Amino acid sequence: MILGIDIGGTTVKCGIVSHEGEISEVRVFSTPGWVESKGFVESLKIEIGNYLKDFPSIKGVGMGFPGLLSPDRKKVVLLANIPSVVNAPVIELLNSTYPGIVFRMENDAKCAALGEHYFGENKGIDNYMMITLGTGVGGGIIIDKKLFIGARGNAAEIGHVLVSNGKTLEKNIGINHLIKIAVEKLKNYEGKSLLKGKDITPKVISECAAQGDELSKEIWKSVGYYLGEALVGVIRLFDLNTFLIGGGISGAFDHFVPEMTRVIKENLPSYYTDDLTIKKAKLGNDAGLLGAAGLIIENFNLEREL
Amino acid sequence: MILGIDIGGTTVKCGIVSHEGEISEVRVFSTPGWVESKGFVESLKIEIGNYLKDFPSIKGVGMGFPGLLSPDRKKVVLLANIPSVVNAPVIELLNSTYPGIVFRMENDAKCAALGEHYFGENKGIDNYMMITLGTGVGGGIIIDKKLFIGARGNAAEIGHVLVSNGKTLEKNIGINHLIKIAVEKLKNYEGKSLLKGKDITPKVISECAAQGDELSKEIWKSVGYYLGEALVGVIRLFDLNTFLIGGGISGAFDHFVPEMTRVIKENLPSYYTDDLTIKKAKLGNDAGLLGAAGLIIENFNLEREL
Repeated sequence: MILGIDIGGTTVKCGIVSHEGEISEVRVFSTPGWVESKGFVESLKIEIGNYLKDFPSIKGVGMGFPGLLSPDRKKVVLLANIPSVVNAPVIELLNSTYPGIVFRMENDAKCAALGEHYFGENKGIDNYMMITLGTGVGGGIIIDKKLFIGARGNAAEIGHVLVSNGKTLEKNIGINHLIKIAVEKLKNYEGKSLLKGKDITPKVISECAAQGDELSKEIWKSVGYYLGEALVGVIRLFDLNTFLIGGGISGAFDHFVPEMTRVIKENLPSYYTDDLTIKKAKLGNDAGLLGAAGLIIENFNLEREL
Repeated sequence: MILGIDIGGTTVKCGIVSHEGEISEVRVFSTPGWVESKGFVESLKIEIGNYLKDFPSIKGVGMGFPGLLSPDRKKVVLLANIPSVVNAPVIELLNSTYPGIVFRMENDAKCAALGEHYFGENKGIDNYMMITLGTGVGGGIIIDKKLFIGARGNAAEIGHVLVSNGKTLEKNIGINHLIKIAVEKLKNYEGKSLLKGKDITPKVISECAAQGDELSKEIWKSVGYYLGEALVGVIRLFDLNTFLIGGGISGAFDHFVPEMTRVIKENLPSYYTDDLTIKKAKLGNDAGLLGAAGLIIENFNLEREL
């Protein structure tokens, strides 16, 4: 039995994951709540303990952290939202508290890529990149059926490459930034817009775009434009031709894909675009939790034939 | 005995390379000359034949091509300057013409990275990127002491990532583009400049910059700016912290490095910049030829302990 833990800036989602990728016994906690009460690491330790008590057949715990990890995957080295976890000896602490249990950690976006690798539609595909569009914009790259972690362990950070307005991709299309930009555009917009008077969220912008609202369509076009620019670079640097898009913003896939595709085709020769596949990920919000559990499957060599 | 061949848009440089990285018996040919006379592939075959006749102890021939290669490294799939070589069965043809000799090919910028790996200053360094700044802007990445070729064989093409003016890096800092941009800037420049009346080359711009010429310094600053932007993306995507800069433009290293470094530091947290090393490559123009020969050393497992 495996426990998967998907740690985000807002919530920590835990669940038992079967070898077939079914999730059960889900428990969701508030990340700031953990930080403010007993401290993040202590709360993590306690809640893992509760699972181990309730489900004594758990053999391993896989965790996804929304930050940069040490090359040996024993601690977090950069995580702005949860400073107390940075450089804390998380794996060492859990190992000494719960001997006999296997603990593994990985970056959350890389977990999402692994989730698709073990349980998703891209099972069996040798090379692809999974891009998670949420509050953060993250990436996980699978090369030759293995997670590519780069020179020092934290590769594939597509959210932080620069695009043509001189800002990072995340500062253009990460959910909070996107909302802020949309609100600003709406304020300065002289035409009529269905967005006016509404509480702006990606979902609302998608709904209005679906109803033909010009400003909403323009906002998604801009998302597609910057994502396309970043992808041109990634394609040239990794020679990848398969991409999965997941995360909250992927709900607007159909709205931003045309412009994204236009930018890519405008900037790349046919060698790169002929067999290019960019599709919406199917696992949805569970990809990260499933990928975290996948770390343990990998550890026990229990993976199914891919 | 190994023959290394470095193929460029202007010249084809051949030379015998010892296991210590000494080059001898150099012969240089005109690339357009080969294309116009007997055709490129036929000329390549003939001149290799001449070497094999003159030096019967040659056991292998390594070649660097300035284009994209097939995953099996048996042919070129994209090379704008020498269209006749695209999809020609180069390795097959050479194998059947000269049985008993080992033939290998690799992208020229990746050869330069391998040259530094086998014979240069970065011998023994597990992870780095070599960037070649010339007519073309190319890259070669070494991860875990191996050449990283990505998903389909043609990774590390840093020259074709987009920078903030919406153009590729190469279209800003590749030699011909750089000269064109400099000529244009000079034409519109209202102040005094040492460049006026001169035949503009990267060397002349460097000399004028060294004498304090403001316009020349501005031109190099712009090179540093765009290179810095591209490097921010590469560092985030590969988590690399060691870079070597080679090629013709690297002569101006001291002129563009300050702005490049400023852009990198402005856009990356200390995790990435604390141990960042970006230095000028030492092998110079020989890196490509040495790396091509290195392909054969690798083939025979004759490499020295790295």
